[in-house]
Amino acid sequence: MDRTGSGGAPGDTPGDAFARATAVTRDDDGHWRGQVHEGWDIRGNANGGYLLAIVGRVLTSATGRPQPLTTTAHYHRPGVPGPVTIDVETVNETRRFTTATATLRRDAEPVLTVLGTLGDLGATTGPELVRATPPPMPEPDACVPLVPGDPFPPPFTGRVELRLHPEDAGFGEGRPSGEARMRGWFRLRDREPVDAVALLCAVDAFPPTIFNADLPVSWTPTIEMTAHVRARPEPGWLRCAFRTRHVAGGFLEADGEVWDGAGRLVAQSRQLALVPRAR
Amino acid sequence: MDRTGSGGAPGDTPGDAFARATAVTRDDDGHWRGQVHEGWDIRGNANGGYLLAIVGRVLTSATGRPQPLTTTAHYHRPGVPGPVTIDVETVNETRRFTTATATLRRDAEPVLTVLGTLGDLGATTGPELVRATPPPMPEPDACVPLVPGDPFPPPFTGRVELRLHPEDAGFGEGRPSGEARMRGWFRLRDREPVDAVALLCAVDAFPPTIFNADLPVSWTPTIEMTAHVRARPEPGWLRCAFRTRHVAGGFLEADGEVWDGAGRLVAQSRQLALVPRAR
Repeated sequence: MDRTGSGGAPGDTPGDAFARATAVTRDDDGHWRGQVHEGWDIRGNANGGYLLAIVGRVLTSATGRPQPLTTTAHYHRPGVPGPVTIDVETVNETRRFTTATATLRRDAEPVLTVLGTLGDLGATTGPELVRATPPPMPEPDACVPLVPGDPFPPPFTGRVELRLHPEDAGFGEGRPSGEARMRGWFRLRDREPVDAVALLCAVDAFPPTIFNADLPVSWTPTIEMTAHVRARPEPGWLRCAFRTRHVAGGFLEADGEVWDGAGRLVAQSRQLALVPRAR
Repeated sequence: MDRTGSGGAPGDTPGDAFARATAVTRDDDGHWRGQVHEGWDIRGNANGGYLLAIVGRVLTSATGRPQPLTTTAHYHRPGVPGPVTIDVETVNETRRFTTATATLRRDAEPVLTVLGTLGDLGATTGPELVRATPPPMPEPDACVPLVPGDPFPPPFTGRVELRLHPEDAGFGEGRPSGEARMRGWFRLRDREPVDAVALLCAVDAFPPTIFNADLPVSWTPTIEMTAHVRARPEPGWLRCAFRTRHVAGGFLEADGEVWDGAGRLVAQSRQLALVPRAR
C-alpha cells in the first residue's frame, strides 16, 4: 500500500473533493445546475475531463444508468469558475441503454456539448479476448509527481494525483523525450474512489503528448474527446498511457488507455485537438 | 491505373451512385429529408457508415462547412429502406468551426443521433509529425474482392468496392486468421470520387474484425462510432485497416485507419460494439 503524498493514512475517511467539485442538482424547471470549481484549471481554463465529468454526473443522474459507456464531448469555449447549467435531452432508451445529449453553459454560452450512451457495465458478459497489455512503468513511488508550479504544472495537478513516467517527465525542464507520448499514474486525492465518471477526468488529466515531441507547440485545445468506459476500476492507482501518431494539417489525435491495478483496461479515449503554432 | 472490376474504362463519366444514395433535401419547414436506399444493407439493415454519410450530407449542407472533421454516431435501431427525416441543430459556431447535433428518424423513430464538428481541412497548416505508416498490403488486384453472396457477403458489398487482404479473407470459408483484424482496399464504384462524407462510409465498410478471431460471435451491433476526417483523399483506392484489441464484458472496440494513394492518413475511426454470443 502506498502511504506517501496525499494518499492519507490508513483509517482516514476517504476524500470527496472530486465528488463535491462535480456535484449537480436538478431544479424544479428541469435544468441541472453545477459549479466549475476554482483550482481545476490550466491557465485559468477548467480541465476538459473535469468539465466532462460534471456532465457525466448529470447524465448518470438523469438517465438512472450507472456508467457512461461511451461519451463524446465537443468543446466550444474555455470553462471558467462559477455556476453552470446543464440541459440534458434523452434521444433514445432501450432495455439496456439510454442515449442522451447534454450541453453545459456558463452565462447562457455553451462550453461543451456531449452525446453519450449509458448503461450498466456489470449487466453483461460475453467472450473475452485481450490483445494488449498494461503499459510498463516504474511503480508510483519511482515516478515523478506533478505538483502545481508557476506557470507549470498548472493548478489542476494539485486537485488530482499524477505521477509521470520518468522517461516522459523531462519536458518541463526543456528535455522532451522526442516521442509524442505521456505515461503515468492517476488517482484522486485522499483515496477518494475513482468511479466511472471520474474516469472521464482521468483520460484528460495528463499534460499533452505533444509536449514530448520536438515541435513548436505550446498548447493543444481539444475539439472533441470520446471516452469508452470498459470496466469499473479496482481501488488504487491507475496506469495511464497517451500517444499521438499523426500531427498534420493543424490537427492531432491523442489516444489514451487507462488500466487498473488488477491489470484490466478500464477506459479508452481519443481526442482530436488543434495544433496552433507556438507564439 | 487500375482498370479491372467496375472501375470503369478511361473516358467514362464517373459514377454517382453513392451521391444519389446519400442525397438530402431541405423542406420549407426546416426538416431534412433523405432516403435509405435498397441494397446498402447487411441482412436487411443499412450499413452504419452509409447511414452516417446521409447525416454527414445534412451536416455539411446545413452548416455550409465542407468537411465533417469529427463525427460521432450513436445507433439506436436498424435502418431499413425508405424515407427518413433528419433534424439538425447547431449548438455552436465559431469563425472556423460549426458544431451540430442531428437525429435521423424513420417513421418518427430515431435510428441514429450524431454530434459533429465541421470545418475546412484546407484552411490550416501547422507542424507535422507522423509516427505511423500505411498498412502493408498486396495491390488491389492481388486481394480478394468481396461480392454479394447468400447469405454472405451482404448486399452492401455490391454497392462499394472492397478487396480484402488475402490473409484476412478466409473467415468466410471458416478459416479466420486468428487475429481480430480486417485489412483491405476501398473505393466507390465506377470511379465516383470519395469525398470527406464518403470517408464516413469507408470507416464502417468492412466486415467486423471479430470475424477473424476464434470467438463464438456472429454479429457485433455498433453502439457508437467516431470518425475523424484528417485529410481530403487523393482519387483512387484507399488502404484500410481495422483491429480490435479488447473484447470484454460484452463489448469490443474496433479501431480503423484509412490511407490514400499518396500515403496520407485521411481518416481514423473507433467504434464501440456489443458482442452478443452466437446463437
